[in-house]
Amino acid sequence: MLTMPSKKYRASPVVDMPDRQWPSRTLNQAPIWLSTDLRDGNQALFEPMNRERKLRLFHELVRIGFKEIEVGFPSASRTDFEIVRHLIDADLIPKDVTPMVITQLRDDLIEETVRSVQGARRVTVHFYNAIAPAWREIVFGLSVPQIIEMVEHHIGLLRKLTAQHPETEWVLQYSPETFCMAELDVSLSVCNAAIRAWDAGPQRSMIINLPTTVEVSTPNVFADQIEWMHRHLDRREHIVLSVHPHNDRGTGVACAEQALLAGAQRVEGCLFGNGERSGNLDVVTLALNLYTQGIAPGLDFSDISGVARIAEECTALPIHPRHPYVGDLVFTAFSGSHQDAIAKGFATQNPHALWRVPYLPIDPHDLGRTYDSIVRVNSQSGKGGIAFLLQRDHGVVMPRRMQIEFSAIVQSLAEASETELTSEKLWSVFEKTYFPDDQEMSRLAYRRHHLFDAAEGQGIELELVAPDGSVKTLRGAGNGPIAATVAALGLPLRIDSYEERSLGSGAGASAMAIVETAWSGLPGTRFGVGIHPNIVTASVLAVLSAVARFPLAEPSMAG
Amino acid sequence: MLTMPSKKYRASPVVDMPDRQWPSRTLNQAPIWLSTDLRDGNQALFEPMNRERKLRLFHELVRIGFKEIEVGFPSASRTDFEIVRHLIDADLIPKDVTPMVITQLRDDLIEETVRSVQGARRVTVHFYNAIAPAWREIVFGLSVPQIIEMVEHHIGLLRKLTAQHPETEWVLQYSPETFCMAELDVSLSVCNAAIRAWDAGPQRSMIINLPTTVEVSTPNVFADQIEWMHRHLDRREHIVLSVHPHNDRGTGVACAEQALLAGAQRVEGCLFGNGERSGNLDVVTLALNLYTQGIAPGLDFSDISGVARIAEECTALPIHPRHPYVGDLVFTAFSGSHQDAIAKGFATQNPHALWRVPYLPIDPHDLGRTYDSIVRVNSQSGKGGIAFLLQRDHGVVMPRRMQIEFSAIVQSLAEASETELTSEKLWSVFEKTYFPDDQEMSRLAYRRHHLFDAAEGQGIELELVAPDGSVKTLRGAGNGPIAATVAALGLPLRIDSYEERSLGSGAGASAMAIVETAWSGLPGTRFGVGIHPNIVTASVLAVLSAVARFPLAEPSMAG
Repeated sequence: MLTMPSKKYRASPVVDMPDRQWPSRTLNQAPIWLSTDLRDGNQALFEPMNRERKLRLFHELVRIGFKEIEVGFPSASRTDFEIVRHLIDADLIPKDVTPMVITQLRDDLIEETVRSVQGARRVTVHFYNAIAPAWREIVFGLSVPQIIEMVEHHIGLLRKLTAQHPETEWVLQYSPETFCMAELDVSLSVCNAAIRAWDAGPQRSMIINLPTTVEVSTPNVFADQIEWMHRHLDRREHIVLSVHPHNDRGTGVACAEQALLAGAQRVEGCLFGNGERSGNLDVVTLALNLYTQGIAPGLDFSDISGVARIAEECTALPIHPRHPYVGDLVFTAFSGSHQDAIAKGFATQNPHALWRVPYLPIDPHDLGRTYDSIVRVNSQSGKGGIAFLLQRDHGVVMPRRMQIEFSAIVQSLAEASETELTSEKLWSVFEKTYFPDDQEMSRLAYRRHHLFDAAEGQGIELELVAPDGSVKTLRGAGNGPIAATVAALGLPLRIDSYEERSLGSGAGASAMAIVETAWSGLPGTRFGVGIHPNIVTASVLAVLSAVARFPLAEPSMAG
Repeated sequence: MLTMPSKKYRASPVVDMPDRQWPSRTLNQAPIWLSTDLRDGNQALFEPMNRERKLRLFHELVRIGFKEIEVGFPSASRTDFEIVRHLIDADLIPKDVTPMVITQLRDDLIEETVRSVQGARRVTVHFYNAIAPAWREIVFGLSVPQIIEMVEHHIGLLRKLTAQHPETEWVLQYSPETFCMAELDVSLSVCNAAIRAWDAGPQRSMIINLPTTVEVSTPNVFADQIEWMHRHLDRREHIVLSVHPHNDRGTGVACAEQALLAGAQRVEGCLFGNGERSGNLDVVTLALNLYTQGIAPGLDFSDISGVARIAEECTALPIHPRHPYVGDLVFTAFSGSHQDAIAKGFATQNPHALWRVPYLPIDPHDLGRTYDSIVRVNSQSGKGGIAFLLQRDHGVVMPRRMQIEFSAIVQSLAEASETELTSEKLWSVFEKTYFPDDQEMSRLAYRRHHLFDAAEGQGIELELVAPDGSVKTLRGAGNGPIAATVAALGLPLRIDSYEERSLGSGAGASAMAIVETAWSGLPGTRFGVGIHPNIVTASVLAVLSAVARFPLAEPSMAG
């Protein structure tokens, strides 16, 4: 069936507009950003975010620099209602940030929505209803005039309700849902009716937001649709024209970029493209695409791994290793010719000149990341790489980012030598890297620890031995032994990931703990490894191993 | 630094071509496809594929329908050389499939490349060299005339070498690497020199392949570049114009689509977008984008999950849950209004008419998948979903696809009732679903098993009890107890995934095994669950649980 689709599917209509202007334009400024992570993104999760995760993500979105944030669907979710009220009542929304709340067009839901936000300094109320033929006919059984009447009625109600709260600056956002599948003249009639009903003008802000609710055509068709609306909308100068791309055809970013060329001023999306089905527009990719063209995006991704960690924890969804800019593998070169070219590029790159390193569209340091070139151990013989040999012969299962780190270390050590790296040599590099010899180091070495109950959850007392034989005792607490160890050390260390598994089997088997750590102010992360039959001891050793790998660690460890 | 990029980056140049035609065109046929999974995709893996994985993927690519497959880089890798020779010597390449081999421009490498493929019926030799300014200046130190001279010299050598093997039909593919970053007139001069040097014509096939080696601009700029080349190339009617998009800006699919509008006839890419950094063009997404527009792609993805499993196993890279068409979550609706609309769409969909189900851009059954609507248990109270409650109260950790399956089952049972689903009710549904009561069933129930050594690795003897009390003994073997169980049952069952973990702790703790299975000829997969202190018994029970969930299972189990 898959090869004969012509009876079941047909091409989406195109726009007849030979004088389109957008393909001749270039982007020269960032759009207004709206994050819908807490609404469209949240609605697409197996486990919608609880209050704690929603607030955590809200604060991160503010820190990144979003000035418009859709905070929820208060008339559909009690949790959302309470969170929105909490944000307003506890004054958690910065003065330059406008929250947005979405509602369907029903009197009681609109009344509930206004109740959820009253008292805010400024708020956007987001109305949406589907207008495309399949929805009109299959889902609602409504004609176009009936839809227009419905929109006018509910905007009238909102005007009445909001007039009772003049202390708040009210903005209306109207989204003709399923816009990309609707007839352009229908979209225009409905939007213009909404504009008149709200009486959009200098004192009455309004956003018209055009979604690809489901992507159904190539992105140039969406750009044509946007340019057509941009040309025809009433009171255009008083309207902020916004787009809300999805990603069913894998072209959400392209739709957004070309819509901006076509006259859109604002985009809606989520961090790393979370959202219904194949996701919403990925605002991170779009922002960094602009950045690499010399345009300040107005969003801060200078610690992109930190943003990724928070997003992954809040959404419980992974980020793919090939995700643009943020994936584990996107600043990794495997091929020798790419590595050579990149090395020459770094060697000739003037730090004050234009970025011109081959194969790297952006300086990884701008994102708090590092560039890794991966040597292929023995790849000519097809017998496998570093990770494979260490796992087969030593039971070491390295997380992907650690494979990247360790491969780069192996490469730097092996650069001069043309000989094959054996499994034994690799293990010796592994030991030297992650288990430094205490005697050779000026560092504090592990002697013993004990755990105790603490208010924070878990306390630890660490005994460490200085090179002169003197013993230092450090105490700390946290939500577990690893957090407690970090607290005891008193270092600006963040644990980014942790895993532990047995080496071999049986009661006497050791566990290997691996921690990934970041040091405040340094780009990238470093891994530490600990091996011990006691899993807590292995974890403490792993943290100490990681600490020893940061060159700056020493001074602050004197405490 | 991230907010002030204007000194470090600048916009890529655009093409001044106000009479561009591509935005007014529509796609009406599929391109020629080239899979570079075994070359560009393979080079971007931590662990390049070994011979077994490469051959497995080659056969899958042939089965899908690729008529052009880049099989390797034989002059750079002994493994690749041997695999290419094996494909030719063992006559594993179907008559209508043309293999392609890539080589850098060096005399000895070209000679080795020709040796790797001699004796083939038809073969494409792929020449590439970087031509953009940064590469000319930083990496090679070559002028444009020197580059042209180099290209002419090496094509001359290839003509000489291939003239000695007239039994083979030789095709030349020339790729000006870094095309998207090069001046268009430079690209044209080099390509035209290559065309003349090969003497492309009716009897001398040639492909000009234009890559976005690194994506550096919005996709409309790439489309302009392609249209410009399409208009200016010498001997255009004798050239197959091809593109090779990467995905650094997340717009690889859009670049390919718009390049096809602009005159390209052929695309290179990988399954699910594997490849260097952010990946190559995702040929699956492009093919299915065409399919949803009524265009037969010529590639068979009617069992997309099967293709995904092979790709994941061969590359050791995951597919993201939101990946278009294939991700676990893309045919899952969480929102009530979407579910309602989809239900109405299915109810009114005529199986012989155009596909018109809201929010589903493609019929999941066309891909061997199913649609799932997910009920949010208790989501109004923010206390969480099904997976959360089962994990918290019963220690059940469900894989994502199983969460989708079980949520749909809960929803179908709970549809009528408006009451809250408690954790106890959920557990009872879980038990009823995955642990059917043997007494109520006409099925064979587990009694005991024992393992034995077998030539295949692991043999199993299963004792099952029929409803009348009679005992059936089945024997099978495979590479482990699960494969052996499937073999013993003699059913057309495929194990798609398996996981097992302890429930609780201590020596007496039970393990829960979960298997995901597919039944030949039925869309979608079903999960089975087994719990037992012995992990092998738990696995056998899980397979039997899954089998019992397929309605068709009974007859063939009589053996």
